[in-house]
Amino acid sequence: MANCKSCPTCPTGCATDEDASFRVSPDYERFSQKRDVFCRSHWDPEVRSDKTERFYESYRRPLKQWRRVDGYAQKDFALRNAGWHVADLFAERLEGEDRREGFLDYLTAHRGGAPEQREVTSPDEMAKEIKKAAKLFGADLVGITYYDERWVYSHKYSRAAENETPVDLEEGLTSVVVVCHEMDHDLLKTVPSALSGTATGVGYSKDVVTLLALAQYIRNLGYRAYASMNDTASSIPYAIKAGLGEYGRHGLLIAPGIGPRLRIGKIFTDLPLAHDRPIRFGVKEFCQVCRKCSDGCPPKAIAQGDPSDETHNVSNVVGIEKWTTDAEKCFGFWATQMTDCSICIRVCPYNRNYPAWLNRLRFTLMGTFLRRVMLRLDSLLGGGQRTAPKLWWNRLKS
Amino acid sequence: MANCKSCPTCPTGCATDEDASFRVSPDYERFSQKRDVFCRSHWDPEVRSDKTERFYESYRRPLKQWRRVDGYAQKDFALRNAGWHVADLFAERLEGEDRREGFLDYLTAHRGGAPEQREVTSPDEMAKEIKKAAKLFGADLVGITYYDERWVYSHKYSRAAENETPVDLEEGLTSVVVVCHEMDHDLLKTVPSALSGTATGVGYSKDVVTLLALAQYIRNLGYRAYASMNDTASSIPYAIKAGLGEYGRHGLLIAPGIGPRLRIGKIFTDLPLAHDRPIRFGVKEFCQVCRKCSDGCPPKAIAQGDPSDETHNVSNVVGIEKWTTDAEKCFGFWATQMTDCSICIRVCPYNRNYPAWLNRLRFTLMGTFLRRVMLRLDSLLGGGQRTAPKLWWNRLKS
Repeated sequence: MANCKSCPTCPTGCATDEDASFRVSPDYERFSQKRDVFCRSHWDPEVRSDKTERFYESYRRPLKQWRRVDGYAQKDFALRNAGWHVADLFAERLEGEDRREGFLDYLTAHRGGAPEQREVTSPDEMAKEIKKAAKLFGADLVGITYYDERWVYSHKYSRAAENETPVDLEEGLTSVVVVCHEMDHDLLKTVPSALSGTATGVGYSKDVVTLLALAQYIRNLGYRAYASMNDTASSIPYAIKAGLGEYGRHGLLIAPGIGPRLRIGKIFTDLPLAHDRPIRFGVKEFCQVCRKCSDGCPPKAIAQGDPSDETHNVSNVVGIEKWTTDAEKCFGFWATQMTDCSICIRVCPYNRNYPAWLNRLRFTLMGTFLRRVMLRLDSLLGGGQRTAPKLWWNRLKS
Repeated sequence: MANCKSCPTCPTGCATDEDASFRVSPDYERFSQKRDVFCRSHWDPEVRSDKTERFYESYRRPLKQWRRVDGYAQKDFALRNAGWHVADLFAERLEGEDRREGFLDYLTAHRGGAPEQREVTSPDEMAKEIKKAAKLFGADLVGITYYDERWVYSHKYSRAAENETPVDLEEGLTSVVVVCHEMDHDLLKTVPSALSGTATGVGYSKDVVTLLALAQYIRNLGYRAYASMNDTASSIPYAIKAGLGEYGRHGLLIAPGIGPRLRIGKIFTDLPLAHDRPIRFGVKEFCQVCRKCSDGCPPKAIAQGDPSDETHNVSNVVGIEKWTTDAEKCFGFWATQMTDCSICIRVCPYNRNYPAWLNRLRFTLMGTFLRRVMLRLDSLLGGGQRTAPKLWWNRLKS
């Protein structure tokens, strides 16, 4: 089942769920963003607490000292919040109109597009052009897949109404351009720390800038384009269908040569574009034998067992067989730390900063019968060990 | 004469004009931005014309075809304007309040800073930290110099009043952090073309994003920070004093290893920071024997002779001995082309995309008695030849 409606651009047929190793059951339900743990931290007393309030506050109000621990000093929070700043500006731009763009609503900071559409004779050529533009604007990875309504949220969340409201995406969108930005490896080595959250913020800020420029480009060609980060739809299913990587035990996209250190954005469009196909390089089989992320997760929020369709709470999607993270436990730990946590990224053997050729070789071997050897080798070489935040500040000064 | 007021951070004395090869005469006058050719294209009938109006219009309204020439099709203008989009958003954000941020006024898209200042015991350490943050946020080059009021505009330009108004920079700012972003080499190879203007737009968009994040970081440490692009002050004198490069015949900054392919932004701050010192690597002597830019400039806007304090018109600064470009001729050509021109960058022998080690070697030799040989060699190797825009679109697709 390809689940692509009105898509004329895949002559050999669209990529199926099987091609992407998706197991979606008939009782699958589209997700309402109100159930997302971040939204629940606003309306649901089960999640909301003094700690979660203090967590959000730490992003808004700079204080001299939060905790007397390395990585949580004024400069660490100052840098983290500065890294978030550009993404925040777009998120807060229309908060007065109950839009939180990039997080609850798609981005609308656009100029009017062209009144006349550029004629597209080759969706294949057009796809190459779009990928080139995306890289020029800052994307590290780009892939294109068909519009699949299943991954669009059934509802978005309104903070003003404290309730769900319909997603306002137009009809007739046929393609999804997925862009990824790599997060800084050395910052993520310091996780857990407020400092490491800078990598997340800078990633979102880069994402919003690339997405706005690329969507504006599509509009300037006379087509529709809706740029989205965490709002409107799940990103990972599109990224996988667009051939950007595989799904890992920690619930994150793992891309060839880069690993899980990615922020993902997407653009919904009716520009005629050829679609990519999913790839496999042995991630699923590697994650079957590796427990680095689930063992390394302090609140034990990551699945230890096989993929399943069991859910932990209402924040999980119903009807997909996959490794499912307990978002309540995960976010609960963030709130305690007063910053986002990426320990699962730090410890993941796919997240290593070796030279590109060596990572390509490692990833290839990790996809073969040598996977257990590679896993042991990674541990022997100290892969994923934490760098003290003060070392980050001192070491890389130039 | 160092011209630094209240600067406690240079124990060996601030860099003098002599250190930077500046020749500023006693009749030097601070520049009023109203005299800038872009401002004049709004109020001065000597500059404003149907052509200049059409030039600006091409940035705002996407049309299917502006000119029937390779490099000026819908996709070329569409890409250029999309590259400018993020910089435009910040420029237009407060136009209703007569602020055109990044071009006529400094950026104000900031969150409140910290109420308490972080204690700075070592301006030297603090400078290293700021440089590290700047690179993390996207800067390709960073340097720091002291606040020198001479390069701050005497007045800025108000579009609403169509007249000059005082620059609103606060007293007590002691340092200027200069950041540079490299523009795309391959796009600039296609100049003149609307396509090549994408490099300019993307450069500004990167600049605004880095500046906003870095200034927010300084504010989060409890200090003042005003981020500026083309507004408020000339950038090049600060960049030279901050050790980022030398001044070239075409009136642009030439940086070691990169050349003139740079956009420059700056942050005025009172954060205690150690200052860099100017560098020399033989650019002045090379430009003395090279005429690639002045010969290659279609409207002959670039000085053919020696540096002098003669001016062409009111758009030039009075009282500095330097190579001075005729801004009226330069911008007149832009208006005819309906896009900005960077032929002087394309042909400059410092603007070559060789591997880094080879450029380092070349730049070193260009700074010795071999400069004429290096110049001839560059010509023999076809340096600076134009790439047809359609080749750019076809060649680099991946």
